[in-house]
Amino acid sequence: MNGAEALVHTLLDSGVDTVFANPGTSEMHFVAALDRIEGMRCVLGLFEGVVTGAADGYYRVRQRPAGTLLHLGPGLANGLANLHNAKKACSGVVNIVGEHATTHLELDAPLTSDVEGVARPMSHWVRTIAAPERLPADGREAVTQARGRPGRIATLVLPADMAWSPAAALPAGLGPVPQAAAEPLDERQVIAIADHLRQHGPRTLLLLGGRATLARATAWAGRIAAATGCAVMSEFYSPSIERGAGRVAIPRLPYSVDGALQALSRFEHIVLVNAVEPVAFFAYPDKPGRLSAAGTTFSTLSRPSQDPEEALHVLCEALSATRTTAPLVERQPARAGLEDGLLNADTIGALLGALIPENAIVVDEAISTGRAFDAATREAAPHEWLTNMGGSIGYGLPVAVGAAIAAPDRRVIALEGDGSAMYTLQSLWTMARESLDVTVIVFANRHYQILRGEFNQVGAGAPGQRAADMLSIDRPTLDWVALSAGHGVPASRVTTLGELADALRRSLDAPGPSLIEVVM
Amino acid sequence: MNGAEALVHTLLDSGVDTVFANPGTSEMHFVAALDRIEGMRCVLGLFEGVVTGAADGYYRVRQRPAGTLLHLGPGLANGLANLHNAKKACSGVVNIVGEHATTHLELDAPLTSDVEGVARPMSHWVRTIAAPERLPADGREAVTQARGRPGRIATLVLPADMAWSPAAALPAGLGPVPQAAAEPLDERQVIAIADHLRQHGPRTLLLLGGRATLARATAWAGRIAAATGCAVMSEFYSPSIERGAGRVAIPRLPYSVDGALQALSRFEHIVLVNAVEPVAFFAYPDKPGRLSAAGTTFSTLSRPSQDPEEALHVLCEALSATRTTAPLVERQPARAGLEDGLLNADTIGALLGALIPENAIVVDEAISTGRAFDAATREAAPHEWLTNMGGSIGYGLPVAVGAAIAAPDRRVIALEGDGSAMYTLQSLWTMARESLDVTVIVFANRHYQILRGEFNQVGAGAPGQRAADMLSIDRPTLDWVALSAGHGVPASRVTTLGELADALRRSLDAPGPSLIEVVM
Repeated sequence: MNGAEALVHTLLDSGVDTVFANPGTSEMHFVAALDRIEGMRCVLGLFEGVVTGAADGYYRVRQRPAGTLLHLGPGLANGLANLHNAKKACSGVVNIVGEHATTHLELDAPLTSDVEGVARPMSHWVRTIAAPERLPADGREAVTQARGRPGRIATLVLPADMAWSPAAALPAGLGPVPQAAAEPLDERQVIAIADHLRQHGPRTLLLLGGRATLARATAWAGRIAAATGCAVMSEFYSPSIERGAGRVAIPRLPYSVDGALQALSRFEHIVLVNAVEPVAFFAYPDKPGRLSAAGTTFSTLSRPSQDPEEALHVLCEALSATRTTAPLVERQPARAGLEDGLLNADTIGALLGALIPENAIVVDEAISTGRAFDAATREAAPHEWLTNMGGSIGYGLPVAVGAAIAAPDRRVIALEGDGSAMYTLQSLWTMARESLDVTVIVFANRHYQILRGEFNQVGAGAPGQRAADMLSIDRPTLDWVALSAGHGVPASRVTTLGELADALRRSLDAPGPSLIEVVM
Repeated sequence: MNGAEALVHTLLDSGVDTVFANPGTSEMHFVAALDRIEGMRCVLGLFEGVVTGAADGYYRVRQRPAGTLLHLGPGLANGLANLHNAKKACSGVVNIVGEHATTHLELDAPLTSDVEGVARPMSHWVRTIAAPERLPADGREAVTQARGRPGRIATLVLPADMAWSPAAALPAGLGPVPQAAAEPLDERQVIAIADHLRQHGPRTLLLLGGRATLARATAWAGRIAAATGCAVMSEFYSPSIERGAGRVAIPRLPYSVDGALQALSRFEHIVLVNAVEPVAFFAYPDKPGRLSAAGTTFSTLSRPSQDPEEALHVLCEALSATRTTAPLVERQPARAGLEDGLLNADTIGALLGALIPENAIVVDEAISTGRAFDAATREAAPHEWLTNMGGSIGYGLPVAVGAAIAAPDRRVIALEGDGSAMYTLQSLWTMARESLDVTVIVFANRHYQILRGEFNQVGAGAPGQRAADMLSIDRPTLDWVALSAGHGVPASRVTTLGELADALRRSLDAPGPSLIEVVM
């Protein structure tokens, strides 16, 4: 057995059975090991941002880390932006990054770089294998790190000679690495928050972050709100919101500074449930960075290292509210005329609300067009909604790949802006190769639409010709039907609401991926 | 005047008049400044790897740095792989990386990251603007760094509040920053090398690296070879080789370890001219990393901080060989039947040799298919040939963009493997928007063909099904005609040598970009 084989065995034994890969020469022994060892699913991406984003999506849906296989410092660098997003989403990822053989490093060959230095800004944990015999333990430690609570980015650097040298696997029987146990709650703090809610419910906000937006957690939050009159909201971005009919409605904090300021203005106290104090996404010259009203006080019900469902349950018990009835969202009744009318963000949202299949996973990178979708899809069939936690665009299509690999029996719907979809469009090829049930909808407004708003927000006035050129992507027009077909994904272009409804139904019914370009 | 305007003025005054950009919110003031200040050409890329690679290509052709405009840590991260390539090519680049306003950093908003940490592995120099009044001096220092000898990667981090705060430009009249002066030669070393060549010419190799492969340098190298019987070769990778008819033929060191070992086996001494001791690109279990014969001695005629043309000229003088006649390449005579026969790497190479236009710039990322092209194009019309100095694939299309912007009167030919072209295919859109005279030829063998060879080279044997899946990109087939058209670049697919000849002639004659997919 060589080091690569020992590592593959270690990953499998530790519970990692899926690797998203874009390998090069230094990873060939790892690739060869896949032939000789059963059980590792290896999914090829044609660009590393696809690979790392897919690992993020996989974790969000499966709650277990996947591996990535990346080629040296530059290959890792290509994957960094989506590792940034995964890190901010608290997704556990095990990166295996090939490195030159240790004897080769001193020769400073062209691909030599500071791999650990590249890894560090977007990793919680970085280790270079120093000897073949340390490979299994280091591999298991990487999985243990990724399975932290919250999930962590673990980067294991694998020099080629460690992969090809003889090595031994770990002793059998260790079994999969479990997720790290949740840290215990601060029960006095729970009591204090309960007291506060009893006295000041209507002026208090429960702000949900991280995994507090899953349905089992929001069910408790809804009861707490019903019992105390407090409000419940989620952060603007969440790794996954379980929402729709039969669940507690959790509005999202608005993205815009003015909208968020207004939404938060009536609260004197905010209880953070795996959330952080609300801050603006960007700084603007004449706007505050902190979004809560002046004088707002905060308390922390649970931190990311704690279990938000347990925290909300215990709080509910402290309020004697576990049998309180919380209002649940009712399924939007069938409405006539949904497919008539103009094509715009509101009517598209309503159509999505009607057509999102039960248990679907929606990956939202629709940026400007998507702002209307939150309200419009509230009464859809129950589904999961994933948003970008790190703000680096190009997250959507890769996360859709990973989500579809993690949940092969569920439909994935990727909502994309045309600007954002371009960053990692190679994802389409992996969707085609793996026959993933993904419906991609590209909203083609042919601008970096969000930047046109931001240009004004930062006080830069109205863009002139040269600035406008940097904010528009309409010259030439991107042809998403051609781009998609070029990657092997069938596609259609729609310009009316009726055409969109037809194309969307066809896509949702057909196995495998398809893309709809919506000309806005 | 705000900080962004002061920076744009500073860049222009310092001689940087072209910026490749993919901006976000934090860069909007810089974008706004472009409206108000004349003279800065700003070229949009839809992915940051396009932006940084274009700056590399621009420098290689123009010998002057361009700027890049990148959005925060993740945007910079997306550009790192091509900054790695630019760094290894000794291309000077001025990166302007937006950062959150300094007051916003402590809020840890989603896009917050360690920007300097991301920059450092691929930069020679990193500085964050600490106060608006330091902006002009820091901007000029960034240009000075980039204009070092050899060129350097300078990364200037620009917090948004530095861009929007009042600032003053530098005093007028400083003028463009000149390239750093070459360090003086070691004249005793030149004399010693001349003595060695007189005595041991035939067992000595002049190995040319960096800018020693430009025609004015190779002209002296040819005379030295003619006078002393020494051999002349270039490193396998070069930032630019001026070659073809009327120039001295400079064979490239082979890529393969066995080929390089054989090519170097007859030399007892190697004179390094802006080159480094030859080493293998990758390590292999049973092959040496150093490629020169055992016992080979080395001397250094010039380092990257010195002028190789001057060094070779002075050496030529020391040998009293400045009037020696060096054999120059004669133009390949017109040959009948060039368009008949099978389509393979050899016949394609011969066709290229016949059709490369005078003064063209060839950007070579044809990887496996391209190995035959060096010999086949030796007698082409005089042209420039650019190769990947850092080995991170995805360099070719972006470098072609930058080369075409730098030299609008010259035809650029980008030779691409289908695997490598996928990493930065968004480059095609910039070619279309800017109407660049680029002919892209994609060799579609539908595999990571080089890895199929490397799999065997590293001793992994023959790939089984799972390994083969990681090395092939034929399921589904990438449709390069559709991918290209989707980006706005007209394209055609050819399957015979005659079709390739027709398509190539058409492309070379037509203004603007076009793409030819060659099905291998």
